Amino acid sequence: MESVRFYLPTEVVSGPGCVRRMAERWVLGKKALLVTGARSAARSGALEDVTAALEARGAAWAVFDGVRANPDASQIYMGCDVARREGCDFVVGIGGGSPLDAAKAIAWVVAQGVPRERFLKSRPEPGDAALPIVAVPLTCGTGSEVTPYSIITDHGAKTKVNVSGACLFPKVALLDARYLTGLPREVLADTALDALSHAIEGAYSPRSTRLSEAMALEAVRTIVPELVRLAHGGFVNVAELHYASAVAGMVIAQTGTGLVHAMGYPLTYHKGLPHGRANGILLAGYLEFMERPCPTLTARLLEAMGVAGVDELQALVDAVLDAAGTTPVAPSEEELARFAREPLRLELVRKYRAMPSPEEVMDIYRTGF
Amino acid sequence: MESVRFYLPTEVVSGPGCVRRMAERWVLGKKALLVTGARSAARSGALEDVTAALEARGAAWAVFDGVRANPDASQIYMGCDVARREGCDFVVGIGGGSPLDAAKAIAWVVAQGVPRERFLKSRPEPGDAALPIVAVPLTCGTGSEVTPYSIITDHGAKTKVNVSGACLFPKVALLDARYLTGLPREVLADTALDALSHAIEGAYSPRSTRLSEAMALEAVRTIVPELVRLAHGGFVNVAELHYASAVAGMVIAQTGTGLVHAMGYPLTYHKGLPHGRANGILLAGYLEFMERPCPTLTARLLEAMGVAGVDELQALVDAVLDAAGTTPVAPSEEELARFAREPLRLELVRKYRAMPSPEEVMDIYRTGF
Repeated sequence: MESVRFYLPTEVVSGPGCVRRMAERWVLGKKALLVTGARSAARSGALEDVTAALEARGAAWAVFDGVRANPDASQIYMGCDVARREGCDFVVGIGGGSPLDAAKAIAWVVAQGVPRERFLKSRPEPGDAALPIVAVPLTCGTGSEVTPYSIITDHGAKTKVNVSGACLFPKVALLDARYLTGLPREVLADTALDALSHAIEGAYSPRSTRLSEAMALEAVRTIVPELVRLAHGGFVNVAELHYASAVAGMVIAQTGTGLVHAMGYPLTYHKGLPHGRANGILLAGYLEFMERPCPTLTARLLEAMGVAGVDELQALVDAVLDAAGTTPVAPSEEELARFAREPLRLELVRKYRAMPSPEEVMDIYRTGF
Repeated sequence: MESVRFYLPTEVVSGPGCVRRMAERWVLGKKALLVTGARSAARSGALEDVTAALEARGAAWAVFDGVRANPDASQIYMGCDVARREGCDFVVGIGGGSPLDAAKAIAWVVAQGVPRERFLKSRPEPGDAALPIVAVPLTCGTGSEVTPYSIITDHGAKTKVNVSGACLFPKVALLDARYLTGLPREVLADTALDALSHAIEGAYSPRSTRLSEAMALEAVRTIVPELVRLAHGGFVNVAELHYASAVAGMVIAQTGTGLVHAMGYPLTYHKGLPHGRANGILLAGYLEFMERPCPTLTARLLEAMGVAGVDELQALVDAVLDAAGTTPVAPSEEELARFAREPLRLELVRKYRAMPSPEEVMDIYRTGF
């Protein structure tokens, strides 16, 4: 019997105004590198709160706003140059999954002096250090604020690489749902589906434990009512989604992701589908596939979602994407067949509780589109 | 609106054999101070596993086995003397709540050089350090393996003092339920009731959050079926209780304890009731008192316990103590009246969601006995 681990060293602070009010908990150095995308950090008001809090604590900062969706090594190393030039001693990621993941990679590369030609081939070792990382999530899907993962796009291998290590856990995650109020419903939908996918894949993981499963069910129970509101054009409680995506992140921090993420990556890479959407459309087919090896857990997940079965789940996901005006175009059968071979190459695959054949992978793709 | 925090930096490792197998995760220095009670560390097999793992990692150790139930300052300072004399650079607590709490206090006093005359008057400050702490719990109640609390008896004030600070979170908690197989059913009963009390008080705490409540319900759901087996003399799954008491500990690490603990301390101090038993007999009366201010949560707790109401809960607790042959003698009305004034003195009292009058405190005591 294997040993079971639960590890979640990130201090999670949440509530309106927490960035300014809890400055003494997260200003962890003399000069911060603020890692952001092009616009959301300023637009959400988070950047203003972060800099005000830094100022109040007598800390300086430099901004690297060069992170784009699905960041690659060149963006990471541009950020590292800024951090070194400016003498930053901690890193604050502000944004969706991309800026947070980039902030983590930068914190590791700078602290360990990882040479660029070895980045993507090496991973943080148990003894490695990173600059202290603070995460301010501006979407409600990634969970990156509470995980040791940094997902970097590898153009050479045409896929994504998971740069993962204990030193990449943020020291503090700051969740102020007010930053999410301006988010387009399309982004809410995509990121909520990503969070749902984390909870479900985490629950099915062979590394799932009683505690992480309880957390996964809590996340699922919280997310689905908001998805229903997204589908019907109703008011969405973003604070619920913000909370649930952090809880789902705590789950995958223990379990990792699974087949849905592996199957979603080619859809993002080759078809440009946003990460969460790519996962979301595969969820019902995945549950259908897992129903046979894991009937009890599947029933528990469906009950927590409040849906009668996988068809109702697929209908909900479709309605969410319809309402957001983002119903994806189905790839051709040839493309799907090509993608179906990709996830099986990933090392993740050995970690699945049930191993799908290429034909079963095709079925999951077909259910989605 | 206040900010909400969730912080649980302890790495929890569990499973049969985890102490030896996961040595590289928890041997955190060159020489360990092993803090234990008189017998349980050796009798359970934990001491042998710990020293074998230390040896395998090339680390040395010194043993301080002078911890007794409800440790006081003199025991802490005896342990500190051993640690200093032997040059220990980390501390391993092996045992029930008393050795674990003592290990934490020793780790702080040694690292910070806290003078004895200031010990119960000062508390760890945010910037304070402690020697790295490893916890090997040998009972299933305290939760101390995952909390920042160390409960020390203050003979001067005739009560217990909570020496609490972030630096007292163990770095690693090692849960091997095989160590619990020899525990008398009386100890299982007392400690399981303590864990149940943590989950329930944590759920009612004003600092309770959605996540900590989900964890509290998970703990409650796991503990009660084992209590039923304890009451009926059936086989008890100690691994379930070991797991649930850690989860309940994670809850109070966020919320602190509440009225039941405050009311239980005088029963322990003046009447010698074991800590968990003192809490357990007060639980039903506490739920009854909380039913009015918190009806939904009370219903949720009763549902998770699988009992129809507070009377059934009291009957279950009574049956557990009867089966263990440990039905407590009721204190006199005068004694209860004296105890009823004590908990209200504790600083905890300002943190309750509903503030009981002295007469209501008396009612809770009377329900228990």
